Amino acid sequence: MSSIQAEVIAVGTEILLGQIVNTNATVISKKLQELSVPCYFQSVVGDNEERLLKQFELASSRSNLIIVCGGIGPTKDDLTKQTLAKFLNKPLVYHQATKQKIENYYKMLNQEMPLNNLNQAFIFDEAEPFLNTNGMAVGFAIVSNGVTFIVLPGPPSELLKMLEISVTPYLKEKIGNVFRSRTLRFTTIGESKLASLIDDLILQQYNPTIAIYATLGDVTVRLTANGKTEQECYEKIDKLSDVMIERLSEYFYGFDDETLVQRVVRLLKEKSLTLSVAESLTGGMCQSQIVGVSGASKSFLGGVVTYQNENKIDVLKVNQQIIEEFGAVSEQCAKEMACQVRKLFNSDIGLAFTGIAENGENDVLGVAHIACAFNNSVEALTVTVNRGRNENRLLFTINGLNLLRKILEKR
Amino acid sequence: MSSIQAEVIAVGTEILLGQIVNTNATVISKKLQELSVPCYFQSVVGDNEERLLKQFELASSRSNLIIVCGGIGPTKDDLTKQTLAKFLNKPLVYHQATKQKIENYYKMLNQEMPLNNLNQAFIFDEAEPFLNTNGMAVGFAIVSNGVTFIVLPGPPSELLKMLEISVTPYLKEKIGNVFRSRTLRFTTIGESKLASLIDDLILQQYNPTIAIYATLGDVTVRLTANGKTEQECYEKIDKLSDVMIERLSEYFYGFDDETLVQRVVRLLKEKSLTLSVAESLTGGMCQSQIVGVSGASKSFLGGVVTYQNENKIDVLKVNQQIIEEFGAVSEQCAKEMACQVRKLFNSDIGLAFTGIAENGENDVLGVAHIACAFNNSVEALTVTVNRGRNENRLLFTINGLNLLRKILEKR
Repeated sequence: MSSIQAEVIAVGTEILLGQIVNTNATVISKKLQELSVPCYFQSVVGDNEERLLKQFELASSRSNLIIVCGGIGPTKDDLTKQTLAKFLNKPLVYHQATKQKIENYYKMLNQEMPLNNLNQAFIFDEAEPFLNTNGMAVGFAIVSNGVTFIVLPGPPSELLKMLEISVTPYLKEKIGNVFRSRTLRFTTIGESKLASLIDDLILQQYNPTIAIYATLGDVTVRLTANGKTEQECYEKIDKLSDVMIERLSEYFYGFDDETLVQRVVRLLKEKSLTLSVAESLTGGMCQSQIVGVSGASKSFLGGVVTYQNENKIDVLKVNQQIIEEFGAVSEQCAKEMACQVRKLFNSDIGLAFTGIAENGENDVLGVAHIACAFNNSVEALTVTVNRGRNENRLLFTINGLNLLRKILEKR
Repeated sequence: MSSIQAEVIAVGTEILLGQIVNTNATVISKKLQELSVPCYFQSVVGDNEERLLKQFELASSRSNLIIVCGGIGPTKDDLTKQTLAKFLNKPLVYHQATKQKIENYYKMLNQEMPLNNLNQAFIFDEAEPFLNTNGMAVGFAIVSNGVTFIVLPGPPSELLKMLEISVTPYLKEKIGNVFRSRTLRFTTIGESKLASLIDDLILQQYNPTIAIYATLGDVTVRLTANGKTEQECYEKIDKLSDVMIERLSEYFYGFDDETLVQRVVRLLKEKSLTLSVAESLTGGMCQSQIVGVSGASKSFLGGVVTYQNENKIDVLKVNQQIIEEFGAVSEQCAKEMACQVRKLFNSDIGLAFTGIAENGENDVLGVAHIACAFNNSVEALTVTVNRGRNENRLLFTINGLNLLRKILEKR
């Protein structure tokens, strides 16, 4: 395993023109890292035979696993397979199943097939084909003079699928080990803070490897172990996973693919509870996230966006005295909104947000009061952040969903 | 100008581990394309002196403008400037203003400065310094043996700022021409459809160059011309811009940086009109987008999310007969919702969305009825899309905002 040295070549003039971001190189590198295969170079070459040939030459001189993506489509720009054929001095042949698939597609459309289309079925006789379940062009792996070339399609949806379904098992077999992964999910913590809290674990990482992915308000940590058996992998993962969860328990909310809002919707469904939401500064963002989960209609009844004080009073029936005494930006107002929206929509739970998204163009500080009314109590939370208007709004939304999750889990 | 051949080297092991996407290469390439400088290679090298030296050697053998980013921070991983010094056989010196800035920063914090920090002030005597307004490390350009090396920081916010403020003027002077750009904005059309409608213009592009950027529901086309004078540039841009707008008038909504929702909020403010919104399947997404615009509170009063039929009747006071006769997913219901939300919030305009976001897990088809009540009329629009639950919801939201924009512009 340790003798493999990989590199990634992305082919496509559109990348060199800055028209598209080279995310393919990122997902391939991430996969190699998960499999503990060192990757020392990424490069991008345009759709140009001469420069691509030179790149193949250079890559073969320093790496023994070369993953090439892009340039295997139907147009005359697509030169990757033809250039590799020239480099390896091997003839291209048709992959019959792919050829059939392309011909059938045009038959179905009742259109004449432009002949270039069959280039997508090109492969080498001794290559291992990788079927394309999201497109036409077949991918493959071929070993020549001790160097393995893996050729993949450029469109990210095709590449991702092929990487998971075909390339990963191919590489795992090559490496000869079993691999297992688990993802831990954290919220209301930033990536750098989380990383600093597990700094020692990141530095020591070897098996399992640790990969951190972050979006605003959500950080996931993927642990990937390899070993002789599945059991060996999970023992290694359990050990590290337990340490991490204990250390970061305040921020931990779940495993694998379930996002925070999906978890909230699932908990509502499991507990047969209904929800309504009142929003001021978040302006519908929380409700929109909830409606974004398939099946949310079973638990989410609806809500209001009361962006002005008069609407809080007229539409939501917030007690005017509370606004006069404490202001609309107050814990008291948030609590009242949560109770009133629950009444208005006749739901089991009422969640409410009020506050200030930003303090003006050059002052990005925002503050939100969030409240959740359930049974006979109303819990509240005040959050202060300084990421600018819309990032603040997203962080408030996430904090509200997390408050709701904690209440549902306690139940 | 035509004699410049550029390439981009990004330095950083974190890119090769797939931890971050190499967006720096994209923005640099995009900038080169705008300046009509051909870029033939992008590459990524880890934080490793030997491999970086080899990459400098290779790059200098085939390009005469080499833009290197990353690896100029304060940690011992950061080797870019030291390696370039070795490659060019030139000594590094301190850029005094940067050295001062770093020292002052630590004085202000009242902390001892780790000595590594001063590496960020490294530069060559004959280099042109590029000040870092978003960070510490100084960037620069140096010409050696006919090859120009430009060294930039890795953090995207620092790089972007330096690229705009320092690198662009530096390269323009090198090229010796004036450059001007204009962005045209289009909505309710996909990138590939738009590209196919101006296919001939894209193929002929030379000066102005055409760069298309797309997010779901929004496509922008940036035209960049170069010439001896500003006037010459704008004459070229006007000519192409007029052709494009005429051909794509159905989808065109504005120029430069103003997004669709920003334009809607500006139109509301200019015309002193207030808005309220009722949403079913979009679930607050439209309101959230509006609240996302700074200053929206002047025109946006609020709204409701009536996700269930009962709420449409109880909270929004939709006429029950309309739902019974036409169903909640109907143009009639959308129109009634628009009228009722306008009444409930006492606003000048009522905008409403009802429909189905998706037909279940394997049927991604969604349909929305959108209505806008204003003055004595209610305009409605039916939109059918098949991109999956949440992309559908975003497209419905955009169509609703666009309907509102058209009504406001007619006024």
